[in-house]
Amino acid sequence: MITLSSDFGTPYPAAMKGVILQRTDARLVDVAHDFPRQDVRTAAFWLREVLPYFPPATHLVVVDPGVGTDRNALVVRAGDHALVGPDNGVLLPAARGLAGDGGELETALIDEREIGPVEPTTPADSTADSSERASTTPSNTFHGRDVFAPAAAAVHDAEIDSLGSLECLESGTWAVDLELPAAELEGGRAIGEVLVVDGFGNVITNVPGSSLDGRDRILANGRSVPVGATFAAVPAGERLATVGSHGYVELDVNRGRGDDAFGLEPGDRVVLEPTEDDSD
Amino acid sequence: MITLSSDFGTPYPAAMKGVILQRTDARLVDVAHDFPRQDVRTAAFWLREVLPYFPPATHLVVVDPGVGTDRNALVVRAGDHALVGPDNGVLLPAARGLAGDGGELETALIDEREIGPVEPTTPADSTADSSERASTTPSNTFHGRDVFAPAAAAVHDAEIDSLGSLECLESGTWAVDLELPAAELEGGRAIGEVLVVDGFGNVITNVPGSSLDGRDRILANGRSVPVGATFAAVPAGERLATVGSHGYVELDVNRGRGDDAFGLEPGDRVVLEPTEDDSD
Amino acid sequence: MITLSSDFGTPYPAAMKGVILQRTDARLVDVAHDFPRQDVRTAAFWLREVLPYFPPATHLVVVDPGVGTDRNALVVRAGDHALVGPDNGVLLPAARGLAGDGGELETALIDEREIGPVEPTTPADSTADSSERASTTPSNTFHGRDVFAPAAAAVHDAEIDSLGSLECLESGTWAVDLELPAAELEGGRAIGEVLVVDGFGNVITNVPGSSLDGRDRILANGRSVPVGATFAAVPAGERLATVGSHGYVELDVNRGRGDDAFGLEPGDRVVLEPTEDDSD
Repeated sequence: MITLSSDFGTPYPAAMKGVILQRTDARLVDVAHDFPRQDVRTAAFWLREVLPYFPPATHLVVVDPGVGTDRNALVVRAGDHALVGPDNGVLLPAARGLAGDGGELETALIDEREIGPVEPTTPADSTADSSERASTTPSNTFHGRDVFAPAAAAVHDAEIDSLGSLECLESGTWAVDLELPAAELEGGRAIGEVLVVDGFGNVITNVPGSSLDGRDRILANGRSVPVGATFAAVPAGERLATVGSHGYVELDVNRGRGDDAFGLEPGDRVVLEPTEDDSD
Repeated sequence: MITLSSDFGTPYPAAMKGVILQRTDARLVDVAHDFPRQDVRTAAFWLREVLPYFPPATHLVVVDPGVGTDRNALVVRAGDHALVGPDNGVLLPAARGLAGDGGELETALIDEREIGPVEPTTPADSTADSSERASTTPSNTFHGRDVFAPAAAAVHDAEIDSLGSLECLESGTWAVDLELPAAELEGGRAIGEVLVVDGFGNVITNVPGSSLDGRDRILANGRSVPVGATFAAVPAGERLATVGSHGYVELDVNRGRGDDAFGLEPGDRVVLEPTEDDSD
Repeated sequence: MITLSSDFGTPYPAAMKGVILQRTDARLVDVAHDFPRQDVRTAAFWLREVLPYFPPATHLVVVDPGVGTDRNALVVRAGDHALVGPDNGVLLPAARGLAGDGGELETALIDEREIGPVEPTTPADSTADSSERASTTPSNTFHGRDVFAPAAAAVHDAEIDSLGSLECLESGTWAVDLELPAAELEGGRAIGEVLVVDGFGNVITNVPGSSLDGRDRILANGRSVPVGATFAAVPAGERLATVGSHGYVELDVNRGRGDDAFGLEPGDRVVLEPTEDDSD
């Protein structure tokens, strides 16, 4: 099984799928191709939350603002899973989660020269003007197709427990790390930030859900809001704080958009404090 | 085969797929994940129109504004198909269509406590802050992942002709019914409403297509428009009434948007009447 | 393997998939369903660029502004691939690419009367109002479901090397051709146009990438811009000309939108000329 994640929209992911299916008959499952463009942190958050629900798989991830530069192409083996993508940190939060407590991350850098050329079915000179089209292999702008997709197929066919079929330049290292920021907890007070806003407008913070334990209300950036176990704990259109499916505090509106109601977007600071009325 | 439908956008459906693929190797087919958010009626319409074109399958549907409340989780067996989703009516129009004339609907309520915990691959304490993340199983906000996806896998593996592998609380009933509104037909006059607007802007009403039989023009909310067998029956940019692929009257614009031209949106009243010029 | 491409958005492609899966267990791969509505040229461009990366497959393409008119339904065999879609030119640029230099295009017209009716699972009279729903087979507005999907399944099951299972009206011809425009090259000057703008805002022209060979800067519609091998050759937010993954000149902005910065959209004229500073 190979999962695919990118910020490509369409139809670029289809080219990656074609390249993979030239090489393997693995099941393909899309995670998302509408991650915010070139936003490594948001993709890293979602991958950390979603990939652990999959059975052992190879996860192809291409959110790659540095395509064509000398950033490396990375393979990470984490538990029974493997991740393939640019060495810009996007793979690491998910990889640490998949490796589990104390689990080791094995890494390999992909030698792009050894991936082998990714050619379309037909010679470039089959259309009138194509003899003058430039033919760089790999291209400088679409490593998803020309480097990462064939690498993912190779990693998949090695059945994850061997990265030997790749030409590895180096092992056990990476150039760019990424850790999602953790909230600071001081007694009953939590100082965190917005990690992402989901499609419903739910504001997902990095404050652990346990911060809401035993509270009926909480001050969120100075505004008193009820704490609810479900969206429906408050009437439609009203604000609440709840614990999302990822275990973090969310600032939401029942059947509405929390981001609009709270005026918050990714990266914004969030301070959660006890209210006077129920915290004594 | 398991089809998936939701109002989740991305990447939440991928978490459902991971959970299913942990449990079964069924083929997965997406119907749509961009149904209007929390709009049970629109989802119910599309499912009724699309699901009958599938071979026997388990259909996982999550449009669930009441997630986390005491609304039940429902399985409906209809003919050779099964549907799994919230007991809010979203399954029933499609189920009645799949059961066919006089077909029976067998139902079961899912006991969420018997579904078994849906755990990510790795223990929650594998990341720095996660020991303080709340760990409710199932979560109160993502039953698609924690209840409906494992239920769909279980129903699929029971090969639809047995729901015995589920812990059923009760059979043959549901709490919330939903019937899409029918148009009133009085002689040559039809009083109906807009069911949905599709992505092309075609205004799909609940008026049976037979209302257009033998007519060249019709009055739609007082405006005279030509009746065409195809969009191209009128010049580009012009309005027409036609019979859509679902058998209902649509108010459309050839190569344009009918919703804009007619000023109509879902739920709006639509009156279709004979014009003086061709109805005598 | 059957790939699917359309301008349908959702959920119409799911109906096509159901119809196909009633007839064959082929692997299904989506190319895109968000091609600009009824824009045959843009779809033809992307298909030409993406389909050659697939292994031998049947490619179902429905961008069909003339649905329901007397335009034909076409099958094209090109090399090891087959394409199925409306006879409006959308298949031909991709087919020529797949056939390769000197490759022949075999074609067949689909006799819609021989496709066989596409019926939903249950009789139309299974719901209260459906006896009055019109039941045209095929419908006049959704040939993707009623004509092209069953045709693609038939072509797939004939394993591409025989179109004999289709009732063909005629072979080796089509009604509507389409060639994507080629740029004119005069010495160091290229006069072309914008073919498409991708989701990143990259302006993809029809000027062969070789036009940038040996240049550090170029005049694009009179504006001097640097030529870069990668997006990152210029600082974030700055314009550049580069060679895209398809071999054509793109006008881009590193981590920004080229279409906004250059004020260009599909169909606009693009003139690329040497700058005084590096072309002597």
